[in-house]
Amino acid sequence: MKLSAVIGLLAASQSALAIWPIPRTFQQGSSNTQAVWVSINVAGKSSPIVNSAIDRYKDIINKESFVAPADYKRGTVKTSGILSNLLVSIQSTDETLGLATDESYTLDVPVNGQATLKAKTPYGVVRGLESFSQLVTANGYTKAILNTPVHIEDAPFYVHRGISFDTARNFYSVNSILRTLDAMSYNKLNVFHWHIVDSHSWPVESKTYPDLQGKGAYSTSMQYSYQDVQRVIQYAKERGIRVIPEFDVPGHTYIVGLSKPEIMSCMNKQPNWDHFAAEPPSGQLNIAKPESVEFTKNIISEYTKLFTDNVFHLGGDEVNRNCWTEDPYVQQYLAAHPGQDVESLLVDYYTKVHNYLETTGKTAYTWEETVFHSNYVPNNSTILQVWIDQASVQKAVAQGYRVVSSSYDSYYLDCGHGAWLSNFDGNSWCDPFKSWMHVYNYDVAANITDPAQKKLILGTEVALWSEQSDETVVDSRLWPRAAAMAETSWSGKADASGHVRTTGEVASRLHEQRYRMLGRGINAEPMQPLWCARNPGACNLP
Amino acid sequence: MKLSAVIGLLAASQSALAIWPIPRTFQQGSSNTQAVWVSINVAGKSSPIVNSAIDRYKDIINKESFVAPADYKRGTVKTSGILSNLLVSIQSTDETLGLATDESYTLDVPVNGQATLKAKTPYGVVRGLESFSQLVTANGYTKAILNTPVHIEDAPFYVHRGISFDTARNFYSVNSILRTLDAMSYNKLNVFHWHIVDSHSWPVESKTYPDLQGKGAYSTSMQYSYQDVQRVIQYAKERGIRVIPEFDVPGHTYIVGLSKPEIMSCMNKQPNWDHFAAEPPSGQLNIAKPESVEFTKNIISEYTKLFTDNVFHLGGDEVNRNCWTEDPYVQQYLAAHPGQDVESLLVDYYTKVHNYLETTGKTAYTWEETVFHSNYVPNNSTILQVWIDQASVQKAVAQGYRVVSSSYDSYYLDCGHGAWLSNFDGNSWCDPFKSWMHVYNYDVAANITDPAQKKLILGTEVALWSEQSDETVVDSRLWPRAAAMAETSWSGKADASGHVRTTGEVASRLHEQRYRMLGRGINAEPMQPLWCARNPGACNLP
Repeated sequence: MKLSAVIGLLAASQSALAIWPIPRTFQQGSSNTQAVWVSINVAGKSSPIVNSAIDRYKDIINKESFVAPADYKRGTVKTSGILSNLLVSIQSTDETLGLATDESYTLDVPVNGQATLKAKTPYGVVRGLESFSQLVTANGYTKAILNTPVHIEDAPFYVHRGISFDTARNFYSVNSILRTLDAMSYNKLNVFHWHIVDSHSWPVESKTYPDLQGKGAYSTSMQYSYQDVQRVIQYAKERGIRVIPEFDVPGHTYIVGLSKPEIMSCMNKQPNWDHFAAEPPSGQLNIAKPESVEFTKNIISEYTKLFTDNVFHLGGDEVNRNCWTEDPYVQQYLAAHPGQDVESLLVDYYTKVHNYLETTGKTAYTWEETVFHSNYVPNNSTILQVWIDQASVQKAVAQGYRVVSSSYDSYYLDCGHGAWLSNFDGNSWCDPFKSWMHVYNYDVAANITDPAQKKLILGTEVALWSEQSDETVVDSRLWPRAAAMAETSWSGKADASGHVRTTGEVASRLHEQRYRMLGRGINAEPMQPLWCARNPGACNLP
Repeated sequence: MKLSAVIGLLAASQSALAIWPIPRTFQQGSSNTQAVWVSINVAGKSSPIVNSAIDRYKDIINKESFVAPADYKRGTVKTSGILSNLLVSIQSTDETLGLATDESYTLDVPVNGQATLKAKTPYGVVRGLESFSQLVTANGYTKAILNTPVHIEDAPFYVHRGISFDTARNFYSVNSILRTLDAMSYNKLNVFHWHIVDSHSWPVESKTYPDLQGKGAYSTSMQYSYQDVQRVIQYAKERGIRVIPEFDVPGHTYIVGLSKPEIMSCMNKQPNWDHFAAEPPSGQLNIAKPESVEFTKNIISEYTKLFTDNVFHLGGDEVNRNCWTEDPYVQQYLAAHPGQDVESLLVDYYTKVHNYLETTGKTAYTWEETVFHSNYVPNNSTILQVWIDQASVQKAVAQGYRVVSSSYDSYYLDCGHGAWLSNFDGNSWCDPFKSWMHVYNYDVAANITDPAQKKLILGTEVALWSEQSDETVVDSRLWPRAAAMAETSWSGKADASGHVRTTGEVASRLHEQRYRMLGRGINAEPMQPLWCARNPGACNLP
C-alpha cells in the first residue's frame, strides 16, 4: 500500500466512491467521465477466468442503469472526458484458488482516455472488475464515472470471507445457489461453505452409497447430481469463490440411518428427542463400530475427489453423549472393553477420521466442538470454525489454530424468526434477529492483541441455517446482511487512518449496494424507508 | 349450525380435511372420489362475482397438482366414485360488500355424482369455492377428493378479518397488491386496510391537490392512479375483500408539507426528530389553522368518492404534542385565545373532521389514540383499531365502541428485524418477531366475558408496516403468518366442541396451506424443515 493514511481518511469521507466493500485505499478527483460503451481488453497474457469475468462485467455494466438513492435528484452530470476503454493486465495466469490466492488489484480511471486494471492473478481481475462496475452510474441516456480521476489500490483484509449454506434442512435449487454465488461476487466474498447434508436430508449424489441420496433426498427433484456440484464449483471459481463442502460427522447424521441403520445410534427418538439431539430427528453414527469409521472414510474418499478445494469440512458439532451412553450396543461394547468410555471412543473416531483426511492431502476444517468439547487434539494445520462466542476465537488462536468466526450472536442470519417447534410460541435460542448494523459491528479480532495470534484469524462466515429458510426467502435472508459482513471482512473494521467505520457512516453506501443488487436480480431486503436511503443521516438516532 | 359438537370434535381430529381456515363444522366419510375435470355450473340466478369466481377456481383447480407434505409417501388412492360436477346456487344476487355481508356457505361432496355449494350471497360462493379447491388433491395423473362424502357448513366467526398494508414508507406495485389479494382470498380474509399515505410518501393521485402526489410520490413509477385504485378495489371485490383506505391525520403527514408547507408544524426537525415524532421525518398538520381542517375535509371529500367501502380510516395515531407546543404559530394562536390549549385544539380538529366524514355517509375507523389519548369522544358508530395491548380491546368494548385488534405484540408482522435507524445496532421497540404460533395463540376476546361486549369485537387485522419491508419481501413477511390469524378469525379459537385449537395440532394443516400457496405463486416463508412438515408431531417440543 503506497497511499498515505491521510489520503485514505480524506477520501473515505467522500460519499461519491460508492464501492461496496470499500477499497482499502483510494483517491478521487472532481471531474466526471463519460462511459458510453465500455470496452474491456486484455494487455498481454490472459486466462479463462479473466476472459469469462470480462464477458460477465461487460454485460453487467451494459445492463446497469443505476443511480444511487441518495442522488435521486441529480440530473445529468457534466463530463469533461470520455473513457475509451479499460485495459486489464495480469502478472500470472495461474488459476489456483485457495487460501493463498492473491486477490489484490490496482484500478486507475483517468478523466479521459484509457482506464487500467492491474492484478497479480486472474482473481484480482475479478475483484477489480466488480469495483469498476460499481463506479459506473447512469447519466441520462448514457453512463458516467464520477469524481475522476480515480485511483484504487485494494486487497482483502481477511483471506476467508464466506457464507455457510445449509441445503439439508430445506432444499435449494442449483439456480438459487448460482444466484447466491453471483451475489457473493458483487460483495467480494470468496468462500461458499456448503453444508450439503444433515439429519433432515442427503440431497447429494453418492456413487459409493447410492442409497444415501436415494433414500435421503427429499425427492428426485430435490437432489444435486455430480454434474450439479461440478457446475456450482465451476461457476463459483469463475467468480473467485471457493466451494468448501461439509460432511458433518458423527452427529447430524440421522439421514444416513435410512440406508445404513446398522451403523447408527438413537435414531429418531420420540417424543423426547431433546435428550438425544439439539433438534429432531436424533441420530448419530455409532462410534463404537469400526463400520462407522469405514463409512466416514469412504465418504471422505468420495467427496474429496468431487470437491476440488484443498479444504474439507468435517463438521463435528453438537454431538450428544446420551445418544451413545444409552445405546445398547455401545453399552455392551464398553462393558467388554474396560478402560474405554464414550469420550475415548469419540477421540478415537476423530483421530482416525482426521488422519484419513490428511492422507488425501486436504486440510481439515471443523466446528469448534471437535477441539473444545472433546479430548481430541487435532494438529495445528486444522482450521476451526467457531460459532459459540468471541472467547472461542481467542481460545482457538491461543492454541495455535487458524480460525474462522461465525459467531451465532452476530452472524447467524437465520435467527430472529422465533422458535420453530410447532407447539411453542416463544423465542428461538438464537433470537433476536441480527440486523445489518449488528453484523457490521462485529469484530472477529476483538480482544486479540498478539500479532502472531491475529495472523491466525483467517476470516469470517455468516451462516444461513435452514430450519426456517429455503429457496423462497434465500435472497432476503442473506442480503444485505451478508454484504455488511463482507465489507468488514474485505476492508477491515477501520480505514487506512485507523478510524473504525460506523454503521451511521456506511449506511448510505449499503443502501446503494442493496438497490444495485436489486437491479442485478438479487431480492435483498430493504433496510429502511426509501426516504431514508435518499436522505443520508436523516434516519439516525440523535 | 345443525351439526353436533361431537361430530365437530371427531372430525377435527382427522387430518384429512385440510382446509385452511378450518370450516366451523364438517363431516367426512371414508371413500375417495375421482375429480378428473371439475365442471362448475350455476343453478338458477347468478351474478358477476359468482361467474368470475367460478372461472377463477376452475383455473386454480385445473392447475393444482398438490399433495400435502405429510402425504408425500401416499401413492395413488383408490376411488369409489366420480365427481360429475359442482352445482352452485345462491339465494340473492346482491353484491353489496360490507360489514353485514353474509359469507356463509354449505358444501356437499358425495362419493359419486354431483357436489353442491349453496350460499346466501355471491361472497358465500367465493368462500365455498376456496374450500372446495382445497379439497382437491393430486392423484397420480389425475385428481381426487379424499374422505368423501364431505359435508361442510361454514361461516366466519368474525366479520372483519384483514391486513393493514403500508404502501407509504416503501412502495408496492399494483401487481404485488393484487397478488396479496389473491393470497388473502386463499385464507378467506376480507379486509385490505390500505394505509396508503404516510410521512415518507404520498403515492396516490389526488385530483384536488395534484402536488400531493407530484411532490410526494417517490417517483413517477411509484404511484397509484385513480385507475390503479379502482382496479385494486374491483379485484378485491371479486374475492370478497373490502378495501378500506386510511388517510392518517393529523400526524404522519410530513409529506403533505412538501406541497402545502403553510399548514404544517415541525417539518423534518433534525437531528432531534425523536422529540417531535415517533420516527423521522417529523411533521404534523398545524391544528391551530382552519386551513388544516379544510385540507382534511377536501381529502375526505375526494377519497370517500374514490374508495367505495362504507368505512373510512382517519388514522389519528401517534400525534406528538411537542410538535405543536413548540410551533411558533400555535404559540401565537394560543396566546391570542386564552382558555384554549393544544388538547382543545386537537379535540376541535377531531370533532370537525369526524363530523365531516359523517356527512359523507361513511363510518369512521380510527386508531385507538383518537379516543384513548385525547379528550375527543367520537360517537359510538366509530370503529376503533387498537394496537397497544389487550387492555385496549377491553377498554374499547367497555366504552361501547366496535373494535378491531392489531395488537402489536401479536400482529405486527414487520417486527423482529431489529431497529432500523442506521446508527443503532440494538432491537426494535416491537421485537421480537411474531412467529406463526404466536400469531395463532392471540385471542382478541381474551378477558372479555359480557356477551354484549363480545359482540362489539368485529375482528382482527395483522399489520405490515413498511420501514423494513417492500415488494421484494412482501410474500414472506405476510405468509403464512397472516394465514395463522386468518384461521383464528374465521374459525374462532375453538372448534364446535369448545376445544381451543393448539399450534401443535394445526401445524400440519398450515404446512399444507403454505405449500399450497407456494404452488399458487405466493412465496410464503417456510415454517420448518420439510422433514417436519412430512412428519407431523415429530418437531414438537416434548
